[in-house]
Amino acid sequence: MNDHEKMRCLWLENHELKVRQVPIPEPRPEEALLRVRLAGICGTDLELVKGYYPYQGIIGHEFVGEVVRAVSDLSLVGKRVVGEINLSCGKCRSCRSGRKTHCETRSVLGIIDQNGSFAEYLCLPLTNLHSVPDSIPDEAAVFCEPLSAACQILQQVSIGRNDHVLLIGAGRLGQLIAQVLSIAGCNISVVARYPAQVKTLNQNGISVIAEADIPKRAVDLVIEATGSKDGFRLARAAVRPRGTIVLKSTYHGLLDVDISAVVVDEITLIGSRCGPFAAALSLLEQGLVKTGPLIEACYPLQDGLQAFEQAARSGAMKVLLRPD
Amino acid sequence: MNDHEKMRCLWLENHELKVRQVPIPEPRPEEALLRVRLAGICGTDLELVKGYYPYQGIIGHEFVGEVVRAVSDLSLVGKRVVGEINLSCGKCRSCRSGRKTHCETRSVLGIIDQNGSFAEYLCLPLTNLHSVPDSIPDEAAVFCEPLSAACQILQQVSIGRNDHVLLIGAGRLGQLIAQVLSIAGCNISVVARYPAQVKTLNQNGISVIAEADIPKRAVDLVIEATGSKDGFRLARAAVRPRGTIVLKSTYHGLLDVDISAVVVDEITLIGSRCGPFAAALSLLEQGLVKTGPLIEACYPLQDGLQAFEQAARSGAMKVLLRPD
Repeated sequence: MNDHEKMRCLWLENHELKVRQVPIPEPRPEEALLRVRLAGICGTDLELVKGYYPYQGIIGHEFVGEVVRAVSDLSLVGKRVVGEINLSCGKCRSCRSGRKTHCETRSVLGIIDQNGSFAEYLCLPLTNLHSVPDSIPDEAAVFCEPLSAACQILQQVSIGRNDHVLLIGAGRLGQLIAQVLSIAGCNISVVARYPAQVKTLNQNGISVIAEADIPKRAVDLVIEATGSKDGFRLARAAVRPRGTIVLKSTYHGLLDVDISAVVVDEITLIGSRCGPFAAALSLLEQGLVKTGPLIEACYPLQDGLQAFEQAARSGAMKVLLRPD
Repeated sequence: MNDHEKMRCLWLENHELKVRQVPIPEPRPEEALLRVRLAGICGTDLELVKGYYPYQGIIGHEFVGEVVRAVSDLSLVGKRVVGEINLSCGKCRSCRSGRKTHCETRSVLGIIDQNGSFAEYLCLPLTNLHSVPDSIPDEAAVFCEPLSAACQILQQVSIGRNDHVLLIGAGRLGQLIAQVLSIAGCNISVVARYPAQVKTLNQNGISVIAEADIPKRAVDLVIEATGSKDGFRLARAAVRPRGTIVLKSTYHGLLDVDISAVVVDEITLIGSRCGPFAAALSLLEQGLVKTGPLIEACYPLQDGLQAFEQAARSGAMKVLLRPD
């Protein structure tokens, strides 16, 4: 490989996504150059393309890759890795307090100031990388980032054995959350909108509940992962007084919230984002999370626009991109 | 006293508050009839008068009284008491789960289906009553209800010794919250809008911070007690990623919340309402909470409308009503 060579990527600029050739990036000394083996399209990517967040560059943040170059740790070359997406400074208040994913000057792979994974190559700091055990195929490892986001819920709330957990939304992220909480022994039921989502949940032995059957003001913990404002309204109606709603959805615009009712009912709302990669890798290595049925399609990178079209369809599951 | 006698009260009907004569209420067997010694006007009372919640009857929920009749416990007669304001059924899911203040069929003194404390007499279940130690004067005991609401914060969040706590709002409730958290050893600073509020905080050795000096995205725990929508915006700007905002304000209308930002910053929002009377009484008995400087005026009940006018002024502190 030659530094002056070009690579193919999906480039976002002025709300328009294009397949482009750009120079292969040059890693900094503390970074590795990775060859992307497989990448996944996430709801955030779709929001970026809609123009809801300002970003210009290569998008994509879910991937499994292979280290091509790593000047400060040659032993990594050839290793298969996944990567945490927040690039932190290590010096700010958040970093010093152990909240690296909240670094005040962070860039985020494919989201903020850092070219992403819908490309043949990407650069990430070595400290962001996690080796992928041989037993985890690429098609499972590529789920590591969203799976870690699902695991984050267990880091933020303690769920009692008898707590009734309701998950609203059974899309790309919702399916992973459902599996993680089910594996953790939670008493969970899931509101799913599409037959394919219901089927996948059934295959995993996870209870599905119809919207009309959601108990009112009775659920201990509600997880909102619909990616839409409707989800919050359902969550708010379902949660019991002194219950908790974990917010996993990011979407454009403001939500009208009746704060007085939140106060009177003493509800807790918790925002939840990126999570622990180690936990996600462990679940994948043990084969506990079934990712195969979540894959809807895999496109070559050059057909990335078509892949985005498919991923944007209502009820779409995971659409993957393969750079080679 | 004769059951057919009348009593004076403040009666709310069709958004209009009137001084009225009504029959002295008849306690049920499990209730006590109390003579109100002193009552306090709270922000919720002002909201009720504005017509923000539907309620018809005698308003008021803060009081100290004396037991006049209690057929199922004669030993209580003559005792000075304060009373928890939620009348719970003891049978519903919330009650059985130990969340009596969230009883699904509750009535609430002076707020929901239960005549309140701006009257010469009121009825409350014996189980709602707490004896007031002789060392606590009426003028302090009348603060027991809002003080317990302040204490509720410590039941809901654990505050580390090094956590920076910011209280926004130093009105009637804010002053009590400031004292409770200061007594608990918290590192607290308070945003106060009015000179009288600042003076009272200074007298208690509590730090005051100007709005312009609030650190951005840096505060571990923010308590929003302004009673207005502006308070939330300040709180949101001040709280650090993964920080907590305790919501103490009830006000009419919906608040626009950027949920995506709450998710990205992993903020926790906690609604907080009524709290433990025993803790409040203990603080008052130890003389730790200074209530005297919080009293702005005391009116005879017959001048209740004038008292409400004064309580509704911007920056007003506690206005009391004395029925005799």
